[in-house]
Amino acid sequence: MTAAAQEAFDDTEDPVALITEMGKRAREAARLLASASSDQKDRALKAMARSLREDAEQILSANAKDVAVAEQNGLTGAFLDRLALNPNRVEAMAQGLEAIAALPDPVGEELARWQRPNGLDIARVRVPLGVVGIIYESRPNVTADAGALCLKAGNAAILRGGSESFHSSRAIAASLASGLAEAGLPTEAIQLVPTRDRAAVGAMLKAQGLIDIIVPRGGKSLIARVQDESRVPVLAHLDGICHVYVHRDADPEKAKSIAVNAKMRRTGICGAAETLLVDQAAAPAILPGILDALIAKGCEIRGDAATQALDSRVAAAVDEDWDTEYLDAVLAVRQVDGLDQALDHIERHGSHHTDSIVTEDKDAADRFLNAVDSAIVMHNASTQFADGGEFGMGAEIGISTGRLHARGPVGADKLTTYKYVVRGEGQVRP
Amino acid sequence: MTAAAQEAFDDTEDPVALITEMGKRAREAARLLASASSDQKDRALKAMARSLREDAEQILSANAKDVAVAEQNGLTGAFLDRLALNPNRVEAMAQGLEAIAALPDPVGEELARWQRPNGLDIARVRVPLGVVGIIYESRPNVTADAGALCLKAGNAAILRGGSESFHSSRAIAASLASGLAEAGLPTEAIQLVPTRDRAAVGAMLKAQGLIDIIVPRGGKSLIARVQDESRVPVLAHLDGICHVYVHRDADPEKAKSIAVNAKMRRTGICGAAETLLVDQAAAPAILPGILDALIAKGCEIRGDAATQALDSRVAAAVDEDWDTEYLDAVLAVRQVDGLDQALDHIERHGSHHTDSIVTEDKDAADRFLNAVDSAIVMHNASTQFADGGEFGMGAEIGISTGRLHARGPVGADKLTTYKYVVRGEGQVRP
Repeated sequence: MTAAAQEAFDDTEDPVALITEMGKRAREAARLLASASSDQKDRALKAMARSLREDAEQILSANAKDVAVAEQNGLTGAFLDRLALNPNRVEAMAQGLEAIAALPDPVGEELARWQRPNGLDIARVRVPLGVVGIIYESRPNVTADAGALCLKAGNAAILRGGSESFHSSRAIAASLASGLAEAGLPTEAIQLVPTRDRAAVGAMLKAQGLIDIIVPRGGKSLIARVQDESRVPVLAHLDGICHVYVHRDADPEKAKSIAVNAKMRRTGICGAAETLLVDQAAAPAILPGILDALIAKGCEIRGDAATQALDSRVAAAVDEDWDTEYLDAVLAVRQVDGLDQALDHIERHGSHHTDSIVTEDKDAADRFLNAVDSAIVMHNASTQFADGGEFGMGAEIGISTGRLHARGPVGADKLTTYKYVVRGEGQVRP
Repeated sequence: MTAAAQEAFDDTEDPVALITEMGKRAREAARLLASASSDQKDRALKAMARSLREDAEQILSANAKDVAVAEQNGLTGAFLDRLALNPNRVEAMAQGLEAIAALPDPVGEELARWQRPNGLDIARVRVPLGVVGIIYESRPNVTADAGALCLKAGNAAILRGGSESFHSSRAIAASLASGLAEAGLPTEAIQLVPTRDRAAVGAMLKAQGLIDIIVPRGGKSLIARVQDESRVPVLAHLDGICHVYVHRDADPEKAKSIAVNAKMRRTGICGAAETLLVDQAAAPAILPGILDALIAKGCEIRGDAATQALDSRVAAAVDEDWDTEYLDAVLAVRQVDGLDQALDHIERHGSHHTDSIVTEDKDAADRFLNAVDSAIVMHNASTQFADGGEFGMGAEIGISTGRLHARGPVGADKLTTYKYVVRGEGQVRP
């Protein structure tokens, strides 16, 4: 869509008609992408990267407009930091596209193949999902990342960025479009919703049949709204209430370094630990050292009575603490009477995201890894590894705590479905 | 639930409370099933089979009650045939459970495993999906089949059978429960909704968080209602508008036998062909023989003008015919000018279920298999092979034309999800 057409749409009075039209174009583009070669998709990704670099000036000036408005509206530090671009960030976006180009193409992979007694040859082959809708807050770089990841897997993307990053996202999308065109792919493969009208989000959430899956990226209220309203399947996680459980046979040094890293490396990410569970039997020996280290790093501790008894700096935890994702330098600490009570606690209070056991007892570790029903379960490792990059996926569209289709970090290979390819020599069914 | 408790529930005034309570029990049962061994699940399946045989008399007498009411209500041949049980059908149900017991256990399978440079060992391991809701019409055997398939994959099942098969399903469910108990598994692993109140179906469709997936089995109006109303993800297919495309380089004998089998072997199944596309270039040589064979078997032909010109017995197809799933001895026939037009026709009118090309030209076959976006694509084979049993899956819960989670015939292995198991030696994230 040209910039002029986008301006015209900006005051659209019918977001449903807009999304319907975009969905049809996306479906058509997806059909073409499904049979594009790996080479053609990768050439497009590289052309998009070049195009971002060439258009850096326009992108930065559009971004400056967004930032100025955001500042006028009194938006604060962290928000502005996510919104603002600079030459390094544009370069990082371009490099991100090149990294995605370098990943293996998931499409066409033969997932399984077997022969039937009647001679039929059956293969399960990975194919693109179709049309992916991405709804995100004001991080302009998501426009490039998410669009590129969808393209890699042969999907068309409909992107709806935060209204505060509207000009930035539009400039980035225009730059991506010229890269697509250069490689001979349809520019409708990555479309940005050309209106700030929030009703467009609602229209996307009801576009079943046109959009195959919605990926929301942003704060909890955005995710909650999307999960609540969407008629299209959603890939997301709402909460990351992650646990570190220090078993009685834990190595004290590992327990300390994992607990401190899981909580304090970055407190604002979904894989940050929010609750520490410690076996009573080991608490007197192990817990004081952990608490010292955490408090030294500025962490507030809210503990149960037994933990308060160990350290006078520990505040009293209330029931709500066990169900809270602080996303801050606060940790809830509870002593448990053993593995079963830890499992019960995690089942009751966890969010099925990432949970880790620290122990030298392999049987206890195996029981924990088997019984905890979370997207990621860990033994002797920090929950902060819950990340597609750390898993070696190269790039991720997000982390899912849903049970359907994809769970845990979601890379390009999960933005696909499969079909059965049956080859015969004239067989008919008796 | 005891029979007395079920009677009490039958007049429940609050189906939402009922489904909520059942969902919680199912979730708890699912938690236990998730760590049940393969052996324990298979012992339960075999005990359930024995139990069905031992309880055959009660099951048949409950079924006789259902059949008598259905006859009073004037229900007809095919309906009664699906509803009625006899000793052979009870035995077939028992054998079905034994066949499911003999399948490999999908749970615990390591789908992928790799090591990271930092030494972390990451495995993607198959785990049960959780709670499966099955909504079906008056085929009492689904109670046993679906319950058993869910159990095999470690899932709890909430079954809502057709009201006309209420007594039969209840007797079967009671028999399954005693088999579960015998193997030491929770009887809540397979629960039958104990009310004929249709509002219970609505409550299931809104039980997100308690039910992980809904599988509707029955006629088109049931599927359409479920797909339309459900807030829980649905695994199903609404239409099976399957195509056979006879390419200009088709072998005439294969074309004839595949076309006749795909249409006429059984006309009422979802994999039956509804439209035959034939290349103009080959039609004069190949099509008359196909039409003769079909008409000899009692098939009505509705053709485009070119096909009518070939055979005076061909009625005129109207636009609607290309979008109709006849499920009957009727076939729409259209001549196309080549592969591209065939692909366009299938994309526009198909239901993404199963489509087959007949040709001796491998390149044309590969283009078709690649370009047709259906759950099953075939080369030189009858569309009637679209079936989990024919695919070698042993048992299927249904066929999905959705793109998310599972596509095509759905066996026990797709009633699962996965989790990431990360094993470390104390690693923390830099």
